[in-house]
Amino acid sequence: MTTDGANAEIGLIGLGTMGGNLALNIADNGFQIAVFNRTPEKTDQFMEKAGPLAEKLLPNKSLEDFVASISSPRAIILMVPAGDAVDAQIAALRPLLEADDLIIDAGNANYHDTNRRAQEAGKKGPRFMGIGVSGGEEGARFGPSIMGGGDKSAWDRVGHILEAISAKYEDEPCAAFLGADGAGHLVKTVHNGIEYADMQMIAEVYGVMRDGFGMSAADVGEVFDRWNGGILQSYLIEISGKVAKTADPETGKPMLDIILDTAGQKGTGRWTAIEALMLGTPASAIEAAVAARNMSARLGEREKGEQVFGAAPQRMDKDLIGIDALEAALVAGKIICYAQGFGLILEAAKQYGWDMPLPEIARIWRNGCIIRSAMLNDMSSALSDDASRNLMLAPFFTKKLKETEVKLRQVVAQAALHGLPVPALSAALSYFDIMRTQRSTANMLQGQRDFFGAHGFERTDTDGGGYHGPWAMG
Amino acid sequence: MTTDGANAEIGLIGLGTMGGNLALNIADNGFQIAVFNRTPEKTDQFMEKAGPLAEKLLPNKSLEDFVASISSPRAIILMVPAGDAVDAQIAALRPLLEADDLIIDAGNANYHDTNRRAQEAGKKGPRFMGIGVSGGEEGARFGPSIMGGGDKSAWDRVGHILEAISAKYEDEPCAAFLGADGAGHLVKTVHNGIEYADMQMIAEVYGVMRDGFGMSAADVGEVFDRWNGGILQSYLIEISGKVAKTADPETGKPMLDIILDTAGQKGTGRWTAIEALMLGTPASAIEAAVAARNMSARLGEREKGEQVFGAAPQRMDKDLIGIDALEAALVAGKIICYAQGFGLILEAAKQYGWDMPLPEIARIWRNGCIIRSAMLNDMSSALSDDASRNLMLAPFFTKKLKETEVKLRQVVAQAALHGLPVPALSAALSYFDIMRTQRSTANMLQGQRDFFGAHGFERTDTDGGGYHGPWAMG
Repeated sequence: MTTDGANAEIGLIGLGTMGGNLALNIADNGFQIAVFNRTPEKTDQFMEKAGPLAEKLLPNKSLEDFVASISSPRAIILMVPAGDAVDAQIAALRPLLEADDLIIDAGNANYHDTNRRAQEAGKKGPRFMGIGVSGGEEGARFGPSIMGGGDKSAWDRVGHILEAISAKYEDEPCAAFLGADGAGHLVKTVHNGIEYADMQMIAEVYGVMRDGFGMSAADVGEVFDRWNGGILQSYLIEISGKVAKTADPETGKPMLDIILDTAGQKGTGRWTAIEALMLGTPASAIEAAVAARNMSARLGEREKGEQVFGAAPQRMDKDLIGIDALEAALVAGKIICYAQGFGLILEAAKQYGWDMPLPEIARIWRNGCIIRSAMLNDMSSALSDDASRNLMLAPFFTKKLKETEVKLRQVVAQAALHGLPVPALSAALSYFDIMRTQRSTANMLQGQRDFFGAHGFERTDTDGGGYHGPWAMG
Repeated sequence: MTTDGANAEIGLIGLGTMGGNLALNIADNGFQIAVFNRTPEKTDQFMEKAGPLAEKLLPNKSLEDFVASISSPRAIILMVPAGDAVDAQIAALRPLLEADDLIIDAGNANYHDTNRRAQEAGKKGPRFMGIGVSGGEEGARFGPSIMGGGDKSAWDRVGHILEAISAKYEDEPCAAFLGADGAGHLVKTVHNGIEYADMQMIAEVYGVMRDGFGMSAADVGEVFDRWNGGILQSYLIEISGKVAKTADPETGKPMLDIILDTAGQKGTGRWTAIEALMLGTPASAIEAAVAARNMSARLGEREKGEQVFGAAPQRMDKDLIGIDALEAALVAGKIICYAQGFGLILEAAKQYGWDMPLPEIARIWRNGCIIRSAMLNDMSSALSDDASRNLMLAPFFTKKLKETEVKLRQVVAQAALHGLPVPALSAALSYFDIMRTQRSTANMLQGQRDFFGAHGFERTDTDGGGYHGPWAMG
């Protein structure tokens, strides 16, 4: 404690559900934490519910008091809505802080904003970090996955707090510094993109079971439960089982049959797809998942479509592919969508010159976050061996893909024949087939482009480019 | 002519291939045109090659002389590289122009830039239009498709020139005003996105013929030629046939077998996919085509993939699906990708409050541009009947889809089983199946989201949202 009365080891602004839970988590881990909220009533409500943890919490009614209550050099976590509110909060704090103080944006920022804020911090101070926090409300309170980015020396100062509050995987904290500027928020974005694809592929095999096999929600739930005991063990499979087995208290019907099928999409899933496009790296399974949500939202259009064409799904004999094929397809699809996600992170790291530890990313995703799964442990090992290699080419995953690819083909094929949409699994299969084949069909594209636009092409039999075909025009 | 010596009816800046050809096209149609290029040597070279058209061309060595040689109120076409060069050129022109003069950006601008420039023009003057010009070098010289946007009263002043130089479809000019601000450049962007998907789907059926059926390039060319006499009649099918039948003069081998299969992607195709994501509208076939180009560029990675997994494509009996099924799949895929493209334009029109005439767009795409095809005539009719309807629901296209959907399913299914990647056709099929089915599988996504993030959901049996499931946590 360098200043009289400045007792807090860290401060937090923004006592919404996520911010409040994060503050409680920090207090619960024995750290003295100053808290502040724009509307003081929220601070009062928060303190009333804090119970015995209140003794670790220092509530403040003014930003000045809040800053003064934190020991110097200060560290202040922002958990305010992403966007302008973050810039406004930084602007309000800047005159109250010293150059060596640290602002940590823990919200769901667009990593381009974090890049900009990190650069502004370099010029105007104070220090700045952007950290991705995944795990929802529960994670924030009892242990999220924390993806750190920004000022490395600042991380070294507060890393022990972030590690202490993070989820643990066999005693290892699920928190790490991943690179400069917006690296942490980029990784959080890709995490959410993978989450979209993971969820979508689960919904696709659910659709095959419901509409193709004619299974009840409860029976589908049993299948997910069984899969959760195997290689697919993961939070998303686990909760899919629970969701499927839950009954609606009002009607007694399966909850799934009551829930309207229009899924929102915003922010990070979409950003992942946009980033992939900007960086020129294929993330087709993730893009397909985002597009599927956009289609789901067009319920009125789908109703009209059904009136004209009839609903697409057709019953099929379960034995035509079998339940186990769906598990295998999910395994393959999952490996492929992670290959796309890590490929995207690798490309961003190149683009921005960030030294990003890919195995660390897989390591801190093993617990706390929404996509936590057993397979991430194997991914961490595979990336430790060689982080620059396409994940599909790591021996463990090559073996899994070889074991499952035929089943993925059968699922995609039978789904196509029976009107059961599997856009993310189809995109995953196409990616797998293209990325394992030296000679693609893009020579046709190059021929067309040279024909109509004189774009030029390279030849297979010589080095260098700028060749043109002897096309007969007109 | 209001000023002494100001004889030109229009001016053009930027005498690169596209700009030069556009100037010759304008001169060829009898209009006096002033031309200017930043490097005067290029102007000299251009004039030397102009032949008898030189008498309609007024070359200038300074921007001041150029502006002075155009009759007032002036109209000046910019054909300079998209991006900063356009802003720089506008800034250089502004002090030389009067408020009622008009700058027309005919380059491949990002429509967000055009929106911004139109707004700046509204404040600072002079008038501004952004027009999309499609058709490559040949089109620029002998008749492109012209998609106009910006200042409508300005279009009324120069529209007769743009219509005169445009391609014609049965005497109708392929040029039209499509909406305010960046509307013209948005439509050009979507045109290019559709072009990507159209080309990719052609490349996919080429792949099935080459790798699945084992057909020679020349035989593939014959198939495209035959298709070009039917419902698929289009510039892209026509040139695909020509490309496939062309031999390499050096080796005598088919040109297609010599062209390296790494296709570049930049600008507009990618922008279309990004816009779809930003606007929350599904353009999955276009996105798949962009991703396929990004995969094609990763040749080294694909080589390593083949070493580990072996190349994906397997031979298949041609009779398993047949050549006609490929034609049917292309027909279905094409209708679906246009449905996505027009859906995207409709969404942008809503977002920006643009009154966009969708039938006009299809009408001016019928000739001059790269995606010109017989089917666009039917699309224009269908959109005239009802532009707000999904194109798949227009009776003509509903009928075509009903005739072809089973073949599309068979192609996607057999391609999946035989390792023949058809990502755009698969995405098209998934879109078709989702958009014709009222009850999707997104209820599973909503259940998952409510479970881990308390997002809430709507119920199928009551109105309103904000419901939560009675999930058993832990």
